[in-house]
Amino acid sequence: MITDRKTVTELILANKVAKGITWHQVADAVGLSKEWTTAACLGQMTFNKSQAEIVGELFELPDEAIAWLQIAPYKGSLPTVVPTDPLIYRWYEVVNVYGSTIKELIHEEFGDGIMSAIDFSMDIQREENPNGDRVNVVLSGKFLPYKTY
Amino acid sequence: MITDRKTVTELILANKVAKGITWHQVADAVGLSKEWTTAACLGQMTFNKSQAEIVGELFELPDEAIAWLQIAPYKGSLPTVVPTDPLIYRWYEVVNVYGSTIKELIHEEFGDGIMSAIDFSMDIQREENPNGDRVNVVLSGKFLPYKTY
Amino acid sequence: MITDRKTVTELILANKVAKGITWHQVADAVGLSKEWTTAACLGQMTFNKSQAEIVGELFELPDEAIAWLQIAPYKGSLPTVVPTDPLIYRWYEVVNVYGSTIKELIHEEFGDGIMSAIDFSMDIQREENPNGDRVNVVLSGKFLPYKTY
Amino acid sequence: MITDRKTVTELILANKVAKGITWHQVADAVGLSKEWTTAACLGQMTFNKSQAEIVGELFELPDEAIAWLQIAPYKGSLPTVVPTDPLIYRWYEVVNVYGSTIKELIHEEFGDGIMSAIDFSMDIQREENPNGDRVNVVLSGKFLPYKTY
Amino acid sequence: MITDRKTVTELILANKVAKGITWHQVADAVGLSKEWTTAACLGQMTFNKSQAEIVGELFELPDEAIAWLQIAPYKGSLPTVVPTDPLIYRWYEVVNVYGSTIKELIHEEFGDGIMSAIDFSMDIQREENPNGDRVNVVLSGKFLPYKTY
Amino acid sequence: MITDRKTVTELILANKVAKGITWHQVADAVGLSKEWTTAACLGQMTFNKSQAEIVGELFELPDEAIAWLQIAPYKGSLPTVVPTDPLIYRWYEVVNVYGSTIKELIHEEFGDGIMSAIDFSMDIQREENPNGDRVNVVLSGKFLPYKTY
Amino acid sequence: MITDRKTVTELILANKVAKGITWHQVADAVGLSKEWTTAACLGQMTFNKSQAEIVGELFELPDEAIAWLQIAPYKGSLPTVVPTDPLIYRWYEVVNVYGSTIKELIHEEFGDGIMSAIDFSMDIQREENPNGDRVNVVLSGKFLPYKTY
Amino acid sequence: MITDRKTVTELILANKVAKGITWHQVADAVGLSKEWTTAACLGQMTFNKSQAEIVGELFELPDEAIAWLQIAPYKGSLPTVVPTDPLIYRWYEVVNVYGSTIKELIHEEFGDGIMSAIDFSMDIQREENPNGDRVNVVLSGKFLPYKTY
Amino acid sequence: MITDRKTVTELILANKVAKGITWHQVADAVGLSKEWTTAACLGQMTFNKSQAEIVGELFELPDEAIAWLQIAPYKGSLPTVVPTDPLIYRWYEVVNVYGSTIKELIHEEFGDGIMSAIDFSMDIQREENPNGDRVNVVLSGKFLPYKTY
Amino acid sequence: MITDRKTVTELILANKVAKGITWHQVADAVGLSKEWTTAACLGQMTFNKSQAEIVGELFELPDEAIAWLQIAPYKGSLPTVVPTDPLIYRWYEVVNVYGSTIKELIHEEFGDGIMSAIDFSMDIQREENPNGDRVNVVLSGKFLPYKTY
Repeated sequence: MITDRKTVTELILANKVAKGITWHQVADAVGLSKEWTTAACLGQMTFNKSQAEIVGELFELPDEAIAWLQIAPYKGSLPTVVPTDPLIYRWYEVVNVYGSTIKELIHEEFGDGIMSAIDFSMDIQREENPNGDRVNVVLSGKFLPYKTY
Repeated sequence: MITDRKTVTELILANKVAKGITWHQVADAVGLSKEWTTAACLGQMTFNKSQAEIVGELFELPDEAIAWLQIAPYKGSLPTVVPTDPLIYRWYEVVNVYGSTIKELIHEEFGDGIMSAIDFSMDIQREENPNGDRVNVVLSGKFLPYKTY
Repeated sequence: MITDRKTVTELILANKVAKGITWHQVADAVGLSKEWTTAACLGQMTFNKSQAEIVGELFELPDEAIAWLQIAPYKGSLPTVVPTDPLIYRWYEVVNVYGSTIKELIHEEFGDGIMSAIDFSMDIQREENPNGDRVNVVLSGKFLPYKTY
Repeated sequence: MITDRKTVTELILANKVAKGITWHQVADAVGLSKEWTTAACLGQMTFNKSQAEIVGELFELPDEAIAWLQIAPYKGSLPTVVPTDPLIYRWYEVVNVYGSTIKELIHEEFGDGIMSAIDFSMDIQREENPNGDRVNVVLSGKFLPYKTY
Repeated sequence: MITDRKTVTELILANKVAKGITWHQVADAVGLSKEWTTAACLGQMTFNKSQAEIVGELFELPDEAIAWLQIAPYKGSLPTVVPTDPLIYRWYEVVNVYGSTIKELIHEEFGDGIMSAIDFSMDIQREENPNGDRVNVVLSGKFLPYKTY
Repeated sequence: MITDRKTVTELILANKVAKGITWHQVADAVGLSKEWTTAACLGQMTFNKSQAEIVGELFELPDEAIAWLQIAPYKGSLPTVVPTDPLIYRWYEVVNVYGSTIKELIHEEFGDGIMSAIDFSMDIQREENPNGDRVNVVLSGKFLPYKTY
Repeated sequence: MITDRKTVTELILANKVAKGITWHQVADAVGLSKEWTTAACLGQMTFNKSQAEIVGELFELPDEAIAWLQIAPYKGSLPTVVPTDPLIYRWYEVVNVYGSTIKELIHEEFGDGIMSAIDFSMDIQREENPNGDRVNVVLSGKFLPYKTY
Repeated sequence: MITDRKTVTELILANKVAKGITWHQVADAVGLSKEWTTAACLGQMTFNKSQAEIVGELFELPDEAIAWLQIAPYKGSLPTVVPTDPLIYRWYEVVNVYGSTIKELIHEEFGDGIMSAIDFSMDIQREENPNGDRVNVVLSGKFLPYKTY
Repeated sequence: MITDRKTVTELILANKVAKGITWHQVADAVGLSKEWTTAACLGQMTFNKSQAEIVGELFELPDEAIAWLQIAPYKGSLPTVVPTDPLIYRWYEVVNVYGSTIKELIHEEFGDGIMSAIDFSMDIQREENPNGDRVNVVLSGKFLPYKTY
Repeated sequence: MITDRKTVTELILANKVAKGITWHQVADAVGLSKEWTTAACLGQMTFNKSQAEIVGELFELPDEAIAWLQIAPYKGSLPTVVPTDPLIYRWYEVVNVYGSTIKELIHEEFGDGIMSAIDFSMDIQREENPNGDRVNVVLSGKFLPYKTY
């Protein structure tokens, strides 16, 4: 019996390695962006029924796993408070070094409030560059103002 | 006597509030992006001599403070390991929720390596939107591959 | 010179104790709820110009402090990760004990998403009760769904 | 052999996903609020004998599991000190941002003491709203004053 | 100007050392138990007006400090999560070693619920004993049951 | 093969639930206080040979488990530094709120030293009370003075 | 089924002990430095296809494990934030004691920027010495300057 | 009065910035390596009398500060357990990613023991390189074997 | 006014550096061991009246400081949970590496109980040795058995 | 297959309990001190081939386990940063309370440097005493001076 969502993520990863499937292929099959689809496979988003069945077929998951894919998961994909993986740490470093800057500039433009991490999308692209290719990432989040009451 | 860089940041913030200067105005005076200039004023980047003098004049800083602006600072702008400020936390949350997704997609596109946080730039813009304006952020970092040796 | 928002909070608290002002009186003077007004005085929300002047007058704050009240503060009002104050700890305990329950029930009703802590209001009332009066608190937050993209 | 209460929670969740049972249905069968019933199923409250048997039948639990449901559990439903799940984090954020406000206002109204988290109830409701539906939550806790002795 | 309650505790301690006052004397003057009175002087309980004036006179506190003594303080008297002082650590050790025992035995006697730390009193006494005197402590707290709703 | 003491505790708890044994019954069978006996069953104290055999018979433990009961265990019964269970947290809260008070009063009475947590006993009793029954706990520990050398 | 990279590391270590293979032998077979090869076997670097097959043959790994060796792993080889192993701790101590020195001297020579840990190599050698042999380690990392933008 | 070594470090840094002294100049004046001299100025090593006087003269320190320079300091130069400064973090990352590799290779060469961080030296050099200059660091530590007894 | 014991420790250290007093001289003046006397000066033990006066005279302390020396202090002499100073860390390492060994051997010899850190003395001596002098430390603590009750 | 050293420690402990072997007997069989032998059995030291075979025979270990005994282990024998076991905690308390004293006295005698935890031995003995037997422990570590370079 599958008793948590994490087991489903492990099944997906094990089959992805064994079958050599790419995340682009999964996203194409599901018909959504590669960013959202990957996040959902890794247990951070919720599939609807037809999406879950497509994913289940690709990775040859049992029915029970397909049911779990449609449940809102307990989110959070990192094993430690400060990430140890160098790629992910660089993002944490950006938050740490630029955090106060981001805060100052958004408040200067919008006033008090936040940039949503829910009504949010992300797009990761390669930019070819003679000095070494670059990773370009666009983050887009709705501004949510604090209101007085 | 000024014994650390943090005192200079506090002087800048106190004068910014007292005089009503905006970060856009500082960036225009220095002639660089608002993102880099704000980070530098907040003690995360190093000004060269002429930039430091412009900043010093704007905020009426003493000579000693202008010297400190030209020293590479001990970086890190947040008071806690997990940020408590809601605006900055949303960025930490993006790293936490999407961290493994970002890792998977960059590796699928580029192989093993990282996106640099040093050869890096950031651009924050307002996107007008009838459902509520959005904050759009573009992050651009050079891809640095791990090499065998 | 006042170099951070925390100093303004301390000034407000010191004058509140010395003058015997209540938060109800501050809220009445500002014309907003006691919950929002108290949070703003304690450095968690941002006053506009006229509100800041009213607060400044009540607590006899210097002009510089009134300017700080109009700056979006670095939020987070507790000195430790797990609160040590028994009253505030009970709220942390509610999150700890009921957290997974809240998550399950909101997802069952609304699907995947969150209850906003920004587009949010709170109302604290006394309910008289012969077995001991009760504190009743109403929390209201907009539901923000995760979207596919 | 079942050696802890956590195993029972996992059994309940696995069967809930497999059978498609909702928490409303469990609460109706038990005859109590959905909030308390869900918390109890998740190992935060204690069922009496007849309640435990109803739950056991719904989720097809073995007798031993039904015995565990009647034992006061070691409470605490979150895996980390600061929750990583965005929905639950928003509640932690409320405690963090509004914690000192809540403390000030309850003390202003009631004097020194706490709002009980034991003699406590919670009600979660959807409020339809043209700007996006809202989650409304009512928390009610007995005020317990500190006494001199 | 006194900007927090901790400054008042420091004033009390400094004067206690300088004048050689004992906690028994303070408790006698206030007319309450030595346990509650000491806790209140150390910033963990709230004095009423007449009690505060007696304490203020004993320790020659300024008027402002006497006002602070009547404000419900942010409680928590230890500088670290795990106490380093050997006397206080032994109490933490008792909680650590006997915690699960206490839980089992209270639940066996009373069912699910807690022993209140608010409707609570403590009495510390010396017991003469030929093998070395003993510290005897009686803790008394109201049992608060969890209720279904 | 049983490779640690924790496995024995889990066996005891599982059999206790399955057979409906109470801690009072165990204590009566062993002929010691319910407090010490429960602590020993939960892996915090060491049984001698005859006590271990009585416990082994009650819970139908294998011979290997009975051998483990006679080994001094690695003590500490709580899974987190700050306990999350509300009942046990109240005790941690007492240490946190009253810790400095306890220290002051024991030093005032006895001088510098500690109250032993080893030469120590605990007694938990119900006190009937029309306003709600109370949990009364007597802690008794030998005072151990620091000596000069 | 192998569901994570860590299992492959454990298989490699178990077979290394059982067969008495040295890291030098693995490095010779793969044709790269012993430092990089060991790091890759321990799950910190990514093998290409032919390297993975050589490693797989040496340690008699199943096909699935050989596939995992070619996936960029989640890096980080230590079980605690501060390492407890005395050999590895000495390196952490060097960072702790000499960290600010390293920072000052690299900035004095190169200006603001970092020494890359990605475009990086390491060489560990024994230096014979009559007072006791020494471990000599050469670290070489590209300097990456912060740029203004 | 100077009550700790940290104040002396701050005096040195403030004067270094104000006077524009380089660490190379300090090392030349003292007649030792730039690595050891910088570490000593930053409060990690102990100067002898004549070295302390040279340093005192360079930075115009008071006599009391010169006395503090000759006291073995409490070492540790970083403000957080995991460094937030990107340059120093890269070193922590090396320990984290390569830690187990370093351990394996030193044990393979030397057997069980450690590389000393006390009988230790460090040399930091610039290597010119057409693809970008490199930071080369040589660490040399005596091997200390564990002995049986 | 002196408001805590830590200020007295700083005064002692500042004067010790300024006057060049050794701990041996203090111990000789007080007439006790150097270990206990140093610990007491550093705020870990309590002096009686005549001892405090001798110490006060040596370090030219004000009367108020001499009063503080006779108060049982809040003990704990290290600024971090894991010490960063290499000398002190080696002791923590001994506890970490040999902790379970110490536990096993004391229990094998004495049964369940502890070695007291209160009825305890320490003696630190230099042992001349041609291979390098050694630090020899003798720790002596009363064995305190757990008792059944 | 045995995939880590910890499994071997668990096998040794399980067999020690089952067979009633003492550490003294193991030390006698191996021909070394009880302190070193116990540490090695608990995975903190490395046996050579003949020692490992003796240990393997005593505890009836499989060949694979005997190979693991000859591998330098990842050291650190405690499950938490601050030990919860009262016996081991007393040692941590000694480091915490006496740490700064130990540092001051070793530096006063030897100058700047450390007491080695590698070139180190420990001897634990019972001292009979009419007031209660004492545990006497002798620690002996080579002094390693910091050198200038």
